[in-house]
Amino acid sequence: MDATVHERAGLRDVSGYVPGEQPAGGVKLNTNENPYPPPPAVAEALARFPVERLRRYPPASGEPFRTAAARLHGLEPDEIVATNGGDELLRLALATYVDPGEAVAVAPPTYSLYKVLVRLHGARPVELPLTDDWALPERFAERLNRAGARLALVPNPNAPSGRLLDRETVEAVAAGFDGVLLVDEAYADFVDPERGYDLVPAIRRHPNLLILRTLSKGYSLAGLRFGYGLGSAPLLAPMATKTKDSYNVDALAAEVAAAAIESRAWAADNWARVRAERERLRAGLERLGLPTLSSETNFVLASVPPAASATVPGGRAERGSEPTRGSSNPEIAPDGGAGGPGAEPLYLALKARDVHVRWFAEPRLRDRLRISVGTPEENDRLLAALADLVGAAARD
Amino acid sequence: MDATVHERAGLRDVSGYVPGEQPAGGVKLNTNENPYPPPPAVAEALARFPVERLRRYPPASGEPFRTAAARLHGLEPDEIVATNGGDELLRLALATYVDPGEAVAVAPPTYSLYKVLVRLHGARPVELPLTDDWALPERFAERLNRAGARLALVPNPNAPSGRLLDRETVEAVAAGFDGVLLVDEAYADFVDPERGYDLVPAIRRHPNLLILRTLSKGYSLAGLRFGYGLGSAPLLAPMATKTKDSYNVDALAAEVAAAAIESRAWAADNWARVRAERERLRAGLERLGLPTLSSETNFVLASVPPAASATVPGGRAERGSEPTRGSSNPEIAPDGGAGGPGAEPLYLALKARDVHVRWFAEPRLRDRLRISVGTPEENDRLLAALADLVGAAARD
Repeated sequence: MDATVHERAGLRDVSGYVPGEQPAGGVKLNTNENPYPPPPAVAEALARFPVERLRRYPPASGEPFRTAAARLHGLEPDEIVATNGGDELLRLALATYVDPGEAVAVAPPTYSLYKVLVRLHGARPVELPLTDDWALPERFAERLNRAGARLALVPNPNAPSGRLLDRETVEAVAAGFDGVLLVDEAYADFVDPERGYDLVPAIRRHPNLLILRTLSKGYSLAGLRFGYGLGSAPLLAPMATKTKDSYNVDALAAEVAAAAIESRAWAADNWARVRAERERLRAGLERLGLPTLSSETNFVLASVPPAASATVPGGRAERGSEPTRGSSNPEIAPDGGAGGPGAEPLYLALKARDVHVRWFAEPRLRDRLRISVGTPEENDRLLAALADLVGAAARD
Repeated sequence: MDATVHERAGLRDVSGYVPGEQPAGGVKLNTNENPYPPPPAVAEALARFPVERLRRYPPASGEPFRTAAARLHGLEPDEIVATNGGDELLRLALATYVDPGEAVAVAPPTYSLYKVLVRLHGARPVELPLTDDWALPERFAERLNRAGARLALVPNPNAPSGRLLDRETVEAVAAGFDGVLLVDEAYADFVDPERGYDLVPAIRRHPNLLILRTLSKGYSLAGLRFGYGLGSAPLLAPMATKTKDSYNVDALAAEVAAAAIESRAWAADNWARVRAERERLRAGLERLGLPTLSSETNFVLASVPPAASATVPGGRAERGSEPTRGSSNPEIAPDGGAGGPGAEPLYLALKARDVHVRWFAEPRLRDRLRISVGTPEENDRLLAALADLVGAAARD
């Protein structure tokens, strides 16, 4: 008997999420990890952790993290829910606010995990694509309501574009939307403080607003799997008391995570360094003929023009693939043809040199590479590899 | 606007799980934690963990734990799935094998979390009660199939009775059942080795058999939230690639958990100590007029006869409650009346003395207390408190 017969019917046609690769060596700029180490307070918290405490169940609420996060954001502890990474909060939002069969909205291009989770939950994804300049579509809240969406998943800053919606825009959506607006701020730590972006106080104005934060990026703790949700206490209550596993966050991780966010000033120095490197990386890519979007995150989305692709071994010319279709589909424009190989040959050529970036076989993304901001040395190695591969085109 | 309007309709009538209390002090014998500390290898693993590794995403598969567990059990790594405690595996079993609306079987009295999770998943709990002597009902597999159960959740040893089903009995159920049989071995580490109980090799004979293990009890790591499932690779595949969060287990916990199970011999000494104390505790309870069931776990289920209850302040006599109904319901017999206060007054009186045990307001359990095996000192303090409270009855 084939044991796959036991998989439930609702899962059979759903593909799981395929995370970015985790190569052991090389220049790893493919999964938006922070290039700098976690705050020293993390090692200190580990060193002083009383191992004997692990014998007991942890606090169900993720203390001491929850209190530390409430203090950081000027909130009450019951306006915070601690989770195993931001991913768990995404899953919990579906489990808490969406019955199977109901609609959940996403605005592509967006974090590809969203649609996978919606399908795994048996809910119905509704796609309302971003505009040509990567903004939310006009009358977004109205369209969400018309689609009957119970939940909308919106990254801000956006992944993979790096673009930031301002607070007023997000609040207007929350105010007009009848469902729950989850704003995924996985990359918000990297936003230039001069932008003055802070959505957190808005949870007290909008009882349907749920903000996602993670320690993976800003605090260099992707390996710890620690994130949290911020929202009104009644919004979070069914998640805290029903849908999350009883003791979802372990005692050690909660201690380490609390120490990390209490080191915000230390981490903020890294954020500034990442912003500076991001701009240097953008300038370098630009010089190589790879234009980038401005970004408020720790990654950039670089366009790979056909001329650059053509110079890469395995690229368009050598593959003899059909020419890029002139597209009347607004989803595949203005820069990306769905027919050609797009940026894949360059992605593969970099990978062959042990330089790892991310490429997505999706509309508007096929002709681009998403590149995490690394250390100055890593960024230099990326730029050198690119110069080798596309330099000829750049010099044309 | 009341934010609870956002809770999905399917959740509104479902109550969350209420875990045992976590009092800060006193004698804590209410949540079956191991009375002895975790293996020294845990502290060593923490001390040598390279904090800088937390910057990166962890292995999606829970390495190095998965390989260590495979080695321990003589299995391949893809016959293991690492989870955040056993609780996560229970939730994942539902998410992987059961569509909402389908039937899931439990055999009460049993671990109360099962039914909560079934309801949260929108599935239909089917109850097939244990026999009077706490065994699985006759023709269990046949009845599971007739009920259309996709999944059956069976603790072995049973909680809260402590009784162990032998391997042959469990295998016969797996062989006859069309759905997935999850055998929850949370307490299996405490089974007397002389019983020769080892179900693990059976996963290769039964592609529908999923075994749950946890490090919470046997390895004194309830605070770490680490458990795992053992099953055929095809049975586990959709869980590993679809329903579990992409990186469900953190890098630090996977390292610590691997170190722990590699200390099995050290832990096994504790298991023997727990077994010895368990029998001493049973004898002490017996002497006080509180008969217990034999147990293969780190807890005992003690009966509180009406005579003992009556002596407790707040007990039956003083509450003036109705007399225990003579019961014709086989579920509320032979010892427990559904009408009287049962063991609750004794539970509360112990709590007032800062001695914490577990009481369940459920058929067959109302007149009993579930008592975790503590250190010799803790068990003595419990027995002394009980002697004080029910001693008069015992001397009658």
